[in-house]
Amino acid sequence: LDYQHVQVPFEITLWIMLASLAKIGFHLYNKLPSVVPESCLLIFVGLIMGGIIYGLNDRSPPVMDSDIFFLYLLPPIVLDAGYFMPSRPFFENIGTILLYAVVGTIWNVFGIGFSLYGICQVKAFRLQDVSLLHNLLFGSLIAAVDPVAVLAVFEEIHVNEKLHILVFGESLLNDAVTVVLYKLFRSFCEMPTIKSVDVFAGVGKFFVVGLGGVLVGLSFGFTAAFTTRFTKDIRVIEPLFVFLYSYLSYLTAEMFHLSGIVAIISCAMGMKRYVEANISLKSHTTVKYFMKMWSSVSDTLIFIFLGVSTIGENHEWNWPYICFTVIFCLIWRALGVLVLTFFVNRFHVNTITSKDQFIIAYGGLRGAICFSLVFLLPDFHRKKLFIAATTVVILFTVFIQGMTIRPLVDLLAVKRKRESDPTVGEQIHIRFLDHLLAGIEDISGHWGQYYWKDKLEYFNSKYLQKILLREYDQPKSSIVLLYEKLERKHAIELAQAGQLGHGPAHPSFLCSAFLCSSSDRTVITDQKLEDTLNPRVLDNMREILARNLYRIRRTGPAYNRHTLPGDSEPAEQAKEILILRHQSL
Amino acid sequence: LDYQHVQVPFEITLWIMLASLAKIGFHLYNKLPSVVPESCLLIFVGLIMGGIIYGLNDRSPPVMDSDIFFLYLLPPIVLDAGYFMPSRPFFENIGTILLYAVVGTIWNVFGIGFSLYGICQVKAFRLQDVSLLHNLLFGSLIAAVDPVAVLAVFEEIHVNEKLHILVFGESLLNDAVTVVLYKLFRSFCEMPTIKSVDVFAGVGKFFVVGLGGVLVGLSFGFTAAFTTRFTKDIRVIEPLFVFLYSYLSYLTAEMFHLSGIVAIISCAMGMKRYVEANISLKSHTTVKYFMKMWSSVSDTLIFIFLGVSTIGENHEWNWPYICFTVIFCLIWRALGVLVLTFFVNRFHVNTITSKDQFIIAYGGLRGAICFSLVFLLPDFHRKKLFIAATTVVILFTVFIQGMTIRPLVDLLAVKRKRESDPTVGEQIHIRFLDHLLAGIEDISGHWGQYYWKDKLEYFNSKYLQKILLREYDQPKSSIVLLYEKLERKHAIELAQAGQLGHGPAHPSFLCSAFLCSSSDRTVITDQKLEDTLNPRVLDNMREILARNLYRIRRTGPAYNRHTLPGDSEPAEQAKEILILRHQSL
Repeated sequence: LDYQHVQVPFEITLWIMLASLAKIGFHLYNKLPSVVPESCLLIFVGLIMGGIIYGLNDRSPPVMDSDIFFLYLLPPIVLDAGYFMPSRPFFENIGTILLYAVVGTIWNVFGIGFSLYGICQVKAFRLQDVSLLHNLLFGSLIAAVDPVAVLAVFEEIHVNEKLHILVFGESLLNDAVTVVLYKLFRSFCEMPTIKSVDVFAGVGKFFVVGLGGVLVGLSFGFTAAFTTRFTKDIRVIEPLFVFLYSYLSYLTAEMFHLSGIVAIISCAMGMKRYVEANISLKSHTTVKYFMKMWSSVSDTLIFIFLGVSTIGENHEWNWPYICFTVIFCLIWRALGVLVLTFFVNRFHVNTITSKDQFIIAYGGLRGAICFSLVFLLPDFHRKKLFIAATTVVILFTVFIQGMTIRPLVDLLAVKRKRESDPTVGEQIHIRFLDHLLAGIEDISGHWGQYYWKDKLEYFNSKYLQKILLREYDQPKSSIVLLYEKLERKHAIELAQAGQLGHGPAHPSFLCSAFLCSSSDRTVITDQKLEDTLNPRVLDNMREILARNLYRIRRTGPAYNRHTLPGDSEPAEQAKEILILRHQSL
Repeated sequence: LDYQHVQVPFEITLWIMLASLAKIGFHLYNKLPSVVPESCLLIFVGLIMGGIIYGLNDRSPPVMDSDIFFLYLLPPIVLDAGYFMPSRPFFENIGTILLYAVVGTIWNVFGIGFSLYGICQVKAFRLQDVSLLHNLLFGSLIAAVDPVAVLAVFEEIHVNEKLHILVFGESLLNDAVTVVLYKLFRSFCEMPTIKSVDVFAGVGKFFVVGLGGVLVGLSFGFTAAFTTRFTKDIRVIEPLFVFLYSYLSYLTAEMFHLSGIVAIISCAMGMKRYVEANISLKSHTTVKYFMKMWSSVSDTLIFIFLGVSTIGENHEWNWPYICFTVIFCLIWRALGVLVLTFFVNRFHVNTITSKDQFIIAYGGLRGAICFSLVFLLPDFHRKKLFIAATTVVILFTVFIQGMTIRPLVDLLAVKRKRESDPTVGEQIHIRFLDHLLAGIEDISGHWGQYYWKDKLEYFNSKYLQKILLREYDQPKSSIVLLYEKLERKHAIELAQAGQLGHGPAHPSFLCSAFLCSSSDRTVITDQKLEDTLNPRVLDNMREILARNLYRIRRTGPAYNRHTLPGDSEPAEQAKEILILRHQSL
């Protein structure tokens, strides 16, 4: 038996296996996940595992390594979050999100830090040796809302899109603030005296860390998009680039002490549309599937490790400090949300209701990021107290808040997410309004979001697409793509129902696809189309669509030793065969 | 700048990125890969990289770590090979493959070992200090044909299926022999005296190592299949199990000093059909795609590292030893193939032609396995000579043989692989003959391959399927699946060409799908079907097929927080909508 040799990969594989099996186990009983959030169940599994390890070895189980967490477990989750980020609500609310993430987090850090320092002054609690700086340091790590915990809970309760993006966006973007404040206070702790110039440098760092992250992310994202221009002959490694470049953006940002989370999100959002257009359909399925799989496993592992790490002897218990930490976390967050929303609502037509405010405040869950940061603290005599307080806050927010938020959402009748996708009519309407508003803003000289969006779209189609897309001259109208998707879905459904070829020929099915070119802003509605177009025009339209669709799907795979079976036959030939067969029928 | 912190993942990501970019680079010039095999180009890139590192650092570049090779780079390639192994030709030729792999490899080891010992006795070469045991040890590592190198070359030249599986199967299964002989000779080197009982124990080990590997692999494979029975509600982690279990089988086998390669291949071949039936279509695309991607990257990295590791100062040059090693490798392999094929041909109707024999002998490429094994040798004063000889043999076989084998195949007009898939008619014919031969063997009492295959199939459908498949009672006829695939492909092609719904209704399209139930061995051919079946029967058939297809495709996704967008709508509802829409057209 040679266990040493295979130990590292063997144990990693076993942990992942445990996480996956735990996930399967929960889903075997369908009722369980609908009552208790999965994150709670996983922490529970972790607690049991930790207890077993503790019982068998008679010493504390291994604590989740901060390096492993930040370098290997966190990036997949953030990448998944960034790649599937609904960009429209995100950019529509970017101002509010930034306000919550930056001002809100600073408010919380100083609020929690100073009030805990106040508690430390009470002699009866025997906490006088905890300095203000240490309290602020603790505040900086405990204040940040955790994206992993938020995702785990909010994805299950289906609140409306705006509410979701406000909480989730805040949890992602506050990383820049947390990084800066945490590192600032940590370096202050080690400095003999603090000069005012250091404080100003700290303020400047906010912008460097945040904007630097965006810059690093975008440059890697565009490089990724550019690279996928050249993968036509070697489809099988396309998905790799999506993962490699986004991971590199994260690591590079971390290397330069910038915000890795902001970098990977910018990278994912920057590359998504170009990569999607360049890579094949199968590659894209693989990218999406693998991203979901990976983030799901990471997330499972994080919660299990959180449970395992809780067991052990690295806690110092002090009732007042721990209780007041939980209370201050709740109070300062609630106050922060109230004050900030007051200002937000003054400048917006579409206000945040008081119910939404309650859910935003209540949804401020803490998670593994705090936990990893508290273990990264420099050694000092009260570190174990901070570890205990952090653990309690995390368990409190994940268990109590996480389990009660769903009933509360039901009770308050918070507006839910609409279940269906927007109809084609709605999509056209939204696009039409966007163009209209952009035009109004342009005329009135107001540089609002529609103006910038329009300028960005112009820049994109004028320059970026030409550089980053393989076939930039093809009609990129989303309606054509939608039509193609509908047509394909319809065909597959027909094939499944065994009804292919038995339906009556009906040209009006084609009419459900609208020609809507974004460049000349022409909108043709369904009724108009059928009324005004004569058969010749219809035939022409169909011809154009068919040709375009064919061109979009044409992948032209060249010879390649790593292609999948069935990929290798030329599309041209397949089409000819198809048409011949079709004519012969 | 904090490089230390991110060094490990950063450098790994950069190496993978280099490998992927190199692959893209080669494929940008379409003519290059058709002349020079990719493996040669990659080694060349590695040599350049190694030269650069050597030039910059002024010391030998890092050598490929044997642990990294065996634990991380080799498993993906072998898993890919096992999962996509064409099982029919493999099992039809299993006897010949085992003969080549076991007897052939032993023949080569002892042939090369003894003749090199003979060379060492020539005083002029100054090699008298290399003992017989050391020569045999060297022979055991240099004799084994390398699956990675063989795959890289043979996948590009498209020889006929039988020839391919003979060389490739040998390269996979000789791992058991290599492991045993290498470890045996290495332990002999360290023993003071060798008893005859040790030699017999070595012979016994062959069976333990090989069959143990098969056993470990199959048990993990069946566990994987069993696990995927329960992943219905959590589709997104399905692909993970395929990778986790096969990797665990490899690691477990390595841990017990069994053959990891044999284990992972048995695991992949054992689980494939059950996993495929249990997991969703998208999961399966992801599994296939990711396997190909991973193996392709591993393979690229191996060849690049091979190049990098060649540069440096760990070589001892001795012309006669190195030249004779290359010559003996060629001669003993050629002799071995000739002798073994002579016996094989005596017992087979379908003989191996002399052209095929030449290609089998010539295709005996050595690769990264030899290279990793030679670095694992215990330190002794002639180790650098062995490293130099191994490097030369690998470069000789990969460059000279790898580059000339394609012209030789053209020149000799070796029978190529047929480009097209077998037609439905051929498939039915093959299946019919299988049943017939199984029947004949059963009656005549001869326990041949068809008899065993039939028994295995019976055991599979009677017991294994019931345990391992989620819906084992559904019609598993491959013809129904084929029909479904054809129908779907046809539908998609129609959609692409924009012709959906315009073709005339034609029930005879359905006739191209045959009902062929394997249980009652009924074969209905195309002509018969149209002649003998009345419309009512046809309608009935269509109805059955439509229902079955619908049931096969029905995935019934329950609520799940990690599903992909678009997965969540119930298939039932979609079908109803579809049928309503279809009727309204």
